[in-house]
Amino acid sequence: MSSYPSPIQTLINEFSKLPGIGPRAAARFVFYLLKKPQAELDALGAAVLNLKKEISVCPKCFNITDNNSPLKKDKERVSLCPICQDPERNQKIICVVEEAFNIPAFEKTGQFNGLYHVLGGVIKPHKGIGPEQLKIKELIERIKNDGITEIIIATNPTTEGETTALYLVRLLKPFKIKTTRLARGLPTGGDLEYTDELTLGSALAGRREYQ
Amino acid sequence: MSSYPSPIQTLINEFSKLPGIGPRAAARFVFYLLKKPQAELDALGAAVLNLKKEISVCPKCFNITDNNSPLKKDKERVSLCPICQDPERNQKIICVVEEAFNIPAFEKTGQFNGLYHVLGGVIKPHKGIGPEQLKIKELIERIKNDGITEIIIATNPTTEGETTALYLVRLLKPFKIKTTRLARGLPTGGDLEYTDELTLGSALAGRREYQ
Repeated sequence: MSSYPSPIQTLINEFSKLPGIGPRAAARFVFYLLKKPQAELDALGAAVLNLKKEISVCPKCFNITDNNSPLKKDKERVSLCPICQDPERNQKIICVVEEAFNIPAFEKTGQFNGLYHVLGGVIKPHKGIGPEQLKIKELIERIKNDGITEIIIATNPTTEGETTALYLVRLLKPFKIKTTRLARGLPTGGDLEYTDELTLGSALAGRREYQ
Repeated sequence: MSSYPSPIQTLINEFSKLPGIGPRAAARFVFYLLKKPQAELDALGAAVLNLKKEISVCPKCFNITDNNSPLKKDKERVSLCPICQDPERNQKIICVVEEAFNIPAFEKTGQFNGLYHVLGGVIKPHKGIGPEQLKIKELIERIKNDGITEIIIATNPTTEGETTALYLVRLLKPFKIKTTRLARGLPTGGDLEYTDELTLGSALAGRREYQ
């Protein structure tokens, strides 16, 4: 059915696998690249090929970390991520996130100075992902060994994120440590008219008195 | 400012160059790829690297053509594209398009059986692209040598596409061959309410009597 030459169709197919990209957008990418010098294609191709080769996973918090980071030079701490290695950070507070790519969002706020723990996903029973597929055992170990005083559960405000959060809350109860969740409410710059009823309900329930 | 490890940031930067892709979408692509096996990254990376290496340009119509196409085995016609090589096609009609990637759209209609001519762009004086940067000289040669009876000018219905079309019409006048353009009007599935006045004007001007 396709009328494109095979190298073009192959790349369209590969781009179409990316999230939110259909065959039309994929074709637009390919025709954009066709007009670019080979050096630009080489840069993109190499970046894709090397993506996973030059990073590793922090054995403590499961954040993604750059193999060539200058911090990695220190043999003693060779495999920990820069956040876990930073002595300035509060080692007693752990913010639990679904994925490593959630961490930069928290870092950009400049309002969190503790450590992280990456679960590596959420509980999805219908896809065969239970608690044992996530880094929950490892979280419990950190709580037991590192004198943690607070766990912030920062899973996404989705059904699956909530389920995972509730599971964790129950699991952490025996440890009697402070367990918190992020506030719900109106997003900054949001519009009341377009806010769904669950968000508005949370904003009402969590309302605060003017000081 | 970035909190991402360098291999991740590098690929985000590369993806951000693609048309319509901002840093957020680029990051989504990267984190999608991080969860995929290396084989999938290898496939995408290789497809990007090889894109331009395995294709060439038809010296007659400037369509893009696959170097490994079985038709290419024929030494006599080694570099012509499959469309130019097809003896079943009407060799006397040329559809002039801006880019090679416009051709599959016409092929899919199944309603055009002539040949194509790829201009390689449109006239953009403000970007230094004049008629001499396009494959116009080559089009004139084909008209002179191949006994062409009709030229369909199928540039895009944009200001630049129109300018290029008008330029061609004037240039082709001395040859006294039939020169046509695609019909303007309502797109199939379109909505009158959301149709701009130029399109609606064209649809009115080009109205046809029920037979």
